Amino acid sequence: MRGSAVSRRGLLQAAGAGMMSMWVPQGIKGYTAAEMRALGQAGRLEVGISKWDLDTPALCVDLDALERNLRKMQDAVVRHGVASRPHAKTHKCPVIARLQLASGSIGICTAKVSEAEVMFQHGIDRILMTTSNVTPFKIRRAMTLRTWCPGFIQAVDTDQNARDLSDAARAAGVRADVVIDVDPGTHRTGISPGPPALKLAQLIDELPGLRLRGILCYDGGAQHVKGFAARRERSLARMRAGAETRDLMLRSGLSVEIFSGGGTGTYNIDHETPGLTDVQVGSYIFMDAQYLEIGGQSDDAVYRDFEPSLTILTTVLNAQHEGVATTDAGTKACTLNQPWPIVKGERGMSYRATSDEFGTIRYDNPSRLYAVGAKLELIISHCDPVVNLYDQMYAVRGDRVEAVWPIAARGKST
Amino acid sequence: MRGSAVSRRGLLQAAGAGMMSMWVPQGIKGYTAAEMRALGQAGRLEVGISKWDLDTPALCVDLDALERNLRKMQDAVVRHGVASRPHAKTHKCPVIARLQLASGSIGICTAKVSEAEVMFQHGIDRILMTTSNVTPFKIRRAMTLRTWCPGFIQAVDTDQNARDLSDAARAAGVRADVVIDVDPGTHRTGISPGPPALKLAQLIDELPGLRLRGILCYDGGAQHVKGFAARRERSLARMRAGAETRDLMLRSGLSVEIFSGGGTGTYNIDHETPGLTDVQVGSYIFMDAQYLEIGGQSDDAVYRDFEPSLTILTTVLNAQHEGVATTDAGTKACTLNQPWPIVKGERGMSYRATSDEFGTIRYDNPSRLYAVGAKLELIISHCDPVVNLYDQMYAVRGDRVEAVWPIAARGKST
Repeated sequence: MRGSAVSRRGLLQAAGAGMMSMWVPQGIKGYTAAEMRALGQAGRLEVGISKWDLDTPALCVDLDALERNLRKMQDAVVRHGVASRPHAKTHKCPVIARLQLASGSIGICTAKVSEAEVMFQHGIDRILMTTSNVTPFKIRRAMTLRTWCPGFIQAVDTDQNARDLSDAARAAGVRADVVIDVDPGTHRTGISPGPPALKLAQLIDELPGLRLRGILCYDGGAQHVKGFAARRERSLARMRAGAETRDLMLRSGLSVEIFSGGGTGTYNIDHETPGLTDVQVGSYIFMDAQYLEIGGQSDDAVYRDFEPSLTILTTVLNAQHEGVATTDAGTKACTLNQPWPIVKGERGMSYRATSDEFGTIRYDNPSRLYAVGAKLELIISHCDPVVNLYDQMYAVRGDRVEAVWPIAARGKST
Repeated sequence: MRGSAVSRRGLLQAAGAGMMSMWVPQGIKGYTAAEMRALGQAGRLEVGISKWDLDTPALCVDLDALERNLRKMQDAVVRHGVASRPHAKTHKCPVIARLQLASGSIGICTAKVSEAEVMFQHGIDRILMTTSNVTPFKIRRAMTLRTWCPGFIQAVDTDQNARDLSDAARAAGVRADVVIDVDPGTHRTGISPGPPALKLAQLIDELPGLRLRGILCYDGGAQHVKGFAARRERSLARMRAGAETRDLMLRSGLSVEIFSGGGTGTYNIDHETPGLTDVQVGSYIFMDAQYLEIGGQSDDAVYRDFEPSLTILTTVLNAQHEGVATTDAGTKACTLNQPWPIVKGERGMSYRATSDEFGTIRYDNPSRLYAVGAKLELIISHCDPVVNLYDQMYAVRGDRVEAVWPIAARGKST
């Protein structure tokens, strides 16, 4: 695993064009005009302006906080003896995927084949797709991607799907890498652990078109259990499904090179599961109101392990009525996820995004009231679906826009 | 007002390139290869295939239902002696805006200046922006649009904003058309009705850069009141704010050429408000689970005035557990709006989209169970934010894809 420091130079290098060579952090601050151009954003009018001058609603990521989050996660996984394979479903942004790889991650995950295609088009070539491809069309897309991207691995959770993938791989002239999706008990995706999963593994091992790489076992529900102790108990109990399946496979002489699972809520718990190789962390880079609520090991009330870096800038449109103000960021800018966005740096007011076009500030006991045209900053409710609403995010250092990052896989839901 | 029939030929004509000449319905079925090319979609692989062969999640609009909805609305407003000025925030799709104008609408509405820009770029030149532009940046955008598009009208709801708009209009060398946004009592946007609104109207009348066109008064909450009688009572009471303001303005010798308001829930009520000129209907073209619930004049349980035309196709990914199945359409494909999407044509099962990536079917007393790879069709929960997730919608007649319509203003929230 690589070192974990992420400098400004490193950021720009990682955000640069196609090459996939590993970047060795140098800790050098500052950057050249050529590096700015390499970001492909030098021509953007927004670069260099204050974020407070952006038109709203605007999605902003604080680079200092993002870099600290990257560093902290990488330090943690190194300390725990595992690796990180961050989930691109969270950011849908190839620049951030490159930052993650540059900081030491061993690959990235995607939820959809369309996301994997976009990441590959932007130079990311170590991709684990955590969902199965079950239709002929999706399988064809996956195999086309596999022919170009040898580092593409996909999930499988039924015998029939394994046979279909094997046939398609042979037709495409490749041997496709797969991991078995093991259901930790959420009954959402995955095959039942133990003997059913072992049987599938044995089938895959015999199929001529497939190469068995291991398993994944993801308990989404565990990530948001409130309270560290309760979260740890739930997660370790559920992940036993994966550990026991892995043992069975190893005893049967099968390869389990990969045992991937976990997430931002359990990143400091998952290494206790025997044999786990990497954590599929996503939200740690951005954080959000949902994660803040779950509490951490050191603070049971607020999850402070990572910093909220992703915010929405919004403008007050109407302030004519006592106790409320209307903004330009409603459901289409914030989603309906709850807890509602948090007005950053303010007390005594709450925010709701129940209207498609408009947000509502309710003043309870505020230190100030906003006038028409005033801008405020919201800590987002839940990062994944919020990011999926925007075509770009503004990468901000202090108050300055340093780059405009395309959310290239936005809306890629197929 | 124009006639209301929308034929297949009319559809294709309306969906064609730039020209804005009024289309006179001819009732001729069928279309030529040239017309197909005019749609700009002839090269799309999806055109001509069965919708059931589309990769999922896929947003589909049923053309027969859409055309009947267009026709029914236009027949109704003609019968009621008002006009329609449909809201493009619902569809964000220039092709549909053109269909609406072709069916007789007098213009379209947008909620955002970015939507207005996209509509204008696609040949729509009668645009009423129903939100105020309150920041220098937004005002500049609006005035730039106004210099190119004389049919652009914008809302205003404070004295200061009127002065700012007037200054910007003079700087741009135009006289900008405005309507006063009158608050019907929702305290979301708009100025208080009566004397405050009159005072603003008098100011606008004196400002050199502005031309007063009238008022708008929109009660979003009234649209979803359940039960026709209750909805009628609420809406008419609230719209009195607009009617009384209009009276005051007329008595003061001011122009109220436009009195715009209402929506899909009150389209057959709004004409009872004295002086109302046009209804800002949006959802009638698509309908959704939210609107089905409000009940209509003839059926208090289900709102049947318009047909659900917008659906999401989704694929079953996992069917290994009793009582449930997992699909590929979660929050990012369906939003969190409730009531949840409805599985079309099925009883005894419910759908939830609480997971970002996955939907859940719960079987209660189903007539069938879905296997992995099976596709099903969902009636959407709430059309506006759902449309805002997709880059395109498939225009389907029967089961055949007839065109692929870009949702060109998707994500245009500024």
